[in-house]
Amino acid sequence: METQSESSSQEPFETHCVIELSTKCNADFVEWMIQRIQSPKSQGGAELLVRSVRDVNTNQYAFLHICAPTYRLLMIAEWLELMKPDMQDNEALREFTVKTLSRFVPEGGYPGDLFDYAEKARMVYFEIHELRAKDDETDRFYKTDKIRFSVGQSIITKIQRKDLINQIFSLHEKEVLKLLSKDWISLSFSKKQPLDRIRAYFGEHISIYFAFLGYYTEMLVPATILGFSMFFLQWFSAGSLQSTAAFAIFNVLWATFFFERWKRYCNRLSYKWGVLNKTNQELELPRAQFKGSMGKNPVTGQPEPVYSVVQRNIWIGLVSAPVVTLCLFLTLYILGTYLHTQLRLSEEYLKNPTIMLFFGKFAPSAVYTICINIFRSVYKYIATWLTDKENHRLQTSYEFHLIWKLLLFNFINSFSSLFYIAFWLQDLDLLRSHLAAQLITNQILDQFPETLMPYAKVQYEKWRLKRELRNEQKKRTARGENVDPNFEALRDQATIESELPEYLGTFDDYLELFLQFGYCFLFSSAFPIAALFALINNVIEIRGDGFKLCNIMQRPFARPANSIGPWQLAFELMGFAAVTTNLALIYVSPPVHEYFSHASDGQLIMAFVVIEHLLIFAKLGMTVIIPTVPRDVAIAMAKTEYDMKLAVKERRAQESRKEIEAQIQAKRWSRRAVRGDPRQGASPSTRSLPTSPQDDVTFVRSIN
Amino acid sequence: METQSESSSQEPFETHCVIELSTKCNADFVEWMIQRIQSPKSQGGAELLVRSVRDVNTNQYAFLHICAPTYRLLMIAEWLELMKPDMQDNEALREFTVKTLSRFVPEGGYPGDLFDYAEKARMVYFEIHELRAKDDETDRFYKTDKIRFSVGQSIITKIQRKDLINQIFSLHEKEVLKLLSKDWISLSFSKKQPLDRIRAYFGEHISIYFAFLGYYTEMLVPATILGFSMFFLQWFSAGSLQSTAAFAIFNVLWATFFFERWKRYCNRLSYKWGVLNKTNQELELPRAQFKGSMGKNPVTGQPEPVYSVVQRNIWIGLVSAPVVTLCLFLTLYILGTYLHTQLRLSEEYLKNPTIMLFFGKFAPSAVYTICINIFRSVYKYIATWLTDKENHRLQTSYEFHLIWKLLLFNFINSFSSLFYIAFWLQDLDLLRSHLAAQLITNQILDQFPETLMPYAKVQYEKWRLKRELRNEQKKRTARGENVDPNFEALRDQATIESELPEYLGTFDDYLELFLQFGYCFLFSSAFPIAALFALINNVIEIRGDGFKLCNIMQRPFARPANSIGPWQLAFELMGFAAVTTNLALIYVSPPVHEYFSHASDGQLIMAFVVIEHLLIFAKLGMTVIIPTVPRDVAIAMAKTEYDMKLAVKERRAQESRKEIEAQIQAKRWSRRAVRGDPRQGASPSTRSLPTSPQDDVTFVRSIN
Repeated sequence: METQSESSSQEPFETHCVIELSTKCNADFVEWMIQRIQSPKSQGGAELLVRSVRDVNTNQYAFLHICAPTYRLLMIAEWLELMKPDMQDNEALREFTVKTLSRFVPEGGYPGDLFDYAEKARMVYFEIHELRAKDDETDRFYKTDKIRFSVGQSIITKIQRKDLINQIFSLHEKEVLKLLSKDWISLSFSKKQPLDRIRAYFGEHISIYFAFLGYYTEMLVPATILGFSMFFLQWFSAGSLQSTAAFAIFNVLWATFFFERWKRYCNRLSYKWGVLNKTNQELELPRAQFKGSMGKNPVTGQPEPVYSVVQRNIWIGLVSAPVVTLCLFLTLYILGTYLHTQLRLSEEYLKNPTIMLFFGKFAPSAVYTICINIFRSVYKYIATWLTDKENHRLQTSYEFHLIWKLLLFNFINSFSSLFYIAFWLQDLDLLRSHLAAQLITNQILDQFPETLMPYAKVQYEKWRLKRELRNEQKKRTARGENVDPNFEALRDQATIESELPEYLGTFDDYLELFLQFGYCFLFSSAFPIAALFALINNVIEIRGDGFKLCNIMQRPFARPANSIGPWQLAFELMGFAAVTTNLALIYVSPPVHEYFSHASDGQLIMAFVVIEHLLIFAKLGMTVIIPTVPRDVAIAMAKTEYDMKLAVKERRAQESRKEIEAQIQAKRWSRRAVRGDPRQGASPSTRSLPTSPQDDVTFVRSIN
Repeated sequence: METQSESSSQEPFETHCVIELSTKCNADFVEWMIQRIQSPKSQGGAELLVRSVRDVNTNQYAFLHICAPTYRLLMIAEWLELMKPDMQDNEALREFTVKTLSRFVPEGGYPGDLFDYAEKARMVYFEIHELRAKDDETDRFYKTDKIRFSVGQSIITKIQRKDLINQIFSLHEKEVLKLLSKDWISLSFSKKQPLDRIRAYFGEHISIYFAFLGYYTEMLVPATILGFSMFFLQWFSAGSLQSTAAFAIFNVLWATFFFERWKRYCNRLSYKWGVLNKTNQELELPRAQFKGSMGKNPVTGQPEPVYSVVQRNIWIGLVSAPVVTLCLFLTLYILGTYLHTQLRLSEEYLKNPTIMLFFGKFAPSAVYTICINIFRSVYKYIATWLTDKENHRLQTSYEFHLIWKLLLFNFINSFSSLFYIAFWLQDLDLLRSHLAAQLITNQILDQFPETLMPYAKVQYEKWRLKRELRNEQKKRTARGENVDPNFEALRDQATIESELPEYLGTFDDYLELFLQFGYCFLFSSAFPIAALFALINNVIEIRGDGFKLCNIMQRPFARPANSIGPWQLAFELMGFAAVTTNLALIYVSPPVHEYFSHASDGQLIMAFVVIEHLLIFAKLGMTVIIPTVPRDVAIAMAKTEYDMKLAVKERRAQESRKEIEAQIQAKRWSRRAVRGDPRQGASPSTRSLPTSPQDDVTFVRSIN
């Protein structure tokens, strides 16, 4: 009976976040951690619930399960200024505060249901990182060595850097996931992606990627259709000039429109998700890997490592930049030699076609493929190393710099050969075949290694672990450990998911799209049906990536995001490049020179240059003119802010008046009291109107 | 004795803002206005002090002097969120609030001294425009007709639109002005402009113009020096190619650096002046001329005219744009015919040089000058009309659209002839002479009509008025009006300054700079010493404009601004254009073709195009990389915001905890109470660490 009422009067323990401890930690150390996480805020703790799991064999602490009780979730949400729909104001987003709780929770609803699991996990993740060392605990001993905290430093961050934590991750929700992947990865092509639910499960950072992927795919449809008609035109009338030109221009405008519309769409989404105009700069914690002499954060005043910007910039300027440039040239060199030998061999073959040479012809490309792939991985290593050395404080800026390094390389690596073929050899047929080859290989074939192989591996792992766990369970029961079944499930799930590969962010996925975008539009006037390949691929890609996230990867922590970040710029630059390349392609195409046979070479180039400048200018114009925030969203936001401010201001105004009256009463403004003198107003000298007596009264009363 | 104490217990009446009434208003109407302005806030009044001045002859109301008592100023300042230096936090800027008054006023200081006269004037101006019609006063009769207000509409705005107010202006402070102009317009060239005091007197909108002018002038020095050395180089070695190219590239980088540094400087200033990141969008009142069906402001919900954006855009797209384009082509046509005839005549003259033709040669340019100047004024009229029709709600967007129309015209009008000469005739000597001519005429000669003539006129006016006033005074005394001398002075000053020309904004001044910038840098590689002319001119310009503002114009109301607005973009575009023009100039210069005699025309152009693209790309790169907000400013701002937020949040967090506890006490979250169960945490099953009893207690206490 007692227990009954007891159990009913408490909310069930729900694992929001799991810490896998390294074997380097000893019991004392872990228990200190637990104690810190559990102890109340008032004592500088995180006031969260912890359950520890020990390894059955070594009996060492293996996992810490962390759960935030609802009341804590509410407080953290308030602290993080989460936006939530206001029930009393037809679901308009408002900053959540406990005071206004009733506005957000429907009648008879339960406050805990206000947050998705993803949000809960993110909040707990934030909260444990906010644990800061107190002055009586600067030195902590673990198995092999001791760890020195400086007062106020983030404990978890430091421990992570010391590799006392293997990983921090959160758990999948099997039921939710099943439903989600059913509606998402199911093969009906007509359906829209359930973006809101993707966001609810994986957070904005990922849902925005899929939003972009979906949007891009849709926008490929018109391009494909036009591309096809173009293709046939070229086929029959051997590429009429006008149509090619028209098509090129269409592509330019299409690309511009594409991005402007995307920005608007993206802003609308982020507004709906309450992350528009939220820069989590000051919420974003410094990266665990961020090194530096211990100092104060200039903004928050919290102790944390500081590192001089100058030093970083020097490194970027004098090391990163040159090394990257060098590598890029190296790539070009490798490519050059390949193309050179390739050409020479083919010529050879034409002179005396021996069997030997026939096969020899393929040697260079084979060698090249191997070389470039080796070099790619080497370069990736170098780039990462350089960026690590740059020692960025925030994940975002770290990613930004890494992305750009890799981007440049991949751009050169994927496109320089095409540029060479298009503008040096000016062999448009070879260009087409290359484009087709690259599109197909880079795309459809990627899917399998990307998803199926790891899936098989993961499945096997799961099966293996499940068996192990069964044995463990036997041991535990043998030892007579009685476990509450609810937690037992969580414990096993955590053990299994700790083995899953970590989701390493959206970089590779975006890169794939970026290159594909290049293949489609840099040379669209030469190879209009590229868009079709892209379209087909993306339809598969969406499901592939979704599948990966749902069935293979560990569940990533939600990361707020309101744009595709550095990729925006990357894609836009590609768009501008496309203008130039397409015009150049048209220029080098034979029909032009036949058509303008009367014009001199110089004049012709001039003409193309002028056109190019005009197009680019038009493109820029469009970008500037089209507002990136849809009008209704802009108004809605302005309104929210205005209402908020007004409320504050009007309350303030009332207080201020009292304040002032009090001050005047207290004659604090001595000699020159502040009042309007009605008598003066009425003085005949200036014949101003005497304010009505009743006015006088109120007026004077309101002052003294 | 009594009066003594009385007078000492009231602050003197200070005119912050003067309304000149039209003769259309009758007494009742004016007295109603006065009553509205004086009546307390609680009754929807402005709670300001008013003194009226009647015309001596007609005895009609002529002027209303409006004064805000200090306590009102404080309240308005709080409402407008003015930023003020916080004495207790080494003068860091904070949002002013009455509650924290003591932080802003030094010990024993007087709150009224917190604001400059300009700020006071601006606040009063804002406050009277915030007077809104109540439901019992929708119809008001004046002399000839009646005026219908819709409830909640801004009264003054409506009255202005009905032309019942001639003008609203504020007064000069003779003493302050004398000191200011002494340090400002005094001819010592070394001295820096007293920007802070200019801002204090005229507001940011104007001080930022002078900041820009000064900055630009400084930056011209290096350009001049290099230009000179360049000039001599060209003189001796007949323009060595390398030096020219180097110089062109220097100019490109200089221009980029120029703007990036300006943005940083400008942001630093606006931060210092507390206007950075302040978009006064929602504070900015709709223009009096803004028409539309009566509706609600979607953001504030205040009744005001509304006008569909679509309708505006349609007008812009289908009327403004085509008309402007037409005019631009017309300008080109006029120019074309002029140049054509000019050329033909000179050829004629060379064939048979008669006296007649010798003078005839000058006819076209004379005719052209006349035509183009007529057309300019016509166009200005058209542009204004078009923009009025566009019916913009805010002054800023109105100006934006007007500026662009005029900008394009002036650009075409000033530069097309130069382009023609440079790239069609390819006559660089003619280009130089034209540049020199235009620079000198447009510049130094402008000064006199701009300043001296109006100054003379104004001086005369003042003298005339002073005499009149003396007569009026006699009449008044004859009538036995006894005036308090303090106000008498104000009254006369107002009467005089009401006759001064109104300051019509910074457009013409910026335009002058913009064109000058073009002359200097579009063709710098052909005419390097242009910078010198500009430098000389600007040194004079600064003083000229200053003089104008101090001695000729009515004192404008302070307008907050944190950048040079649309001009920023205009100048930057010019910068990019300069890259192309300069390279083109080098291309058309003979030495190039001698130098690269081996290369074909096509190849040569190609080379130049590639270089151009690289330069522009580099320029863009610089613009992106260099942060526009100086680091320290960024940090300072982030800190201010963070501190503010933190204070709020921490207070909130405390309340929230109590709130929650209360709710739980009240069992409002029924069945599923929110608490961590320590017993569970301690349960052996999962071997988690039992929290220390004292923890338990606090933990539980903190919940129930």
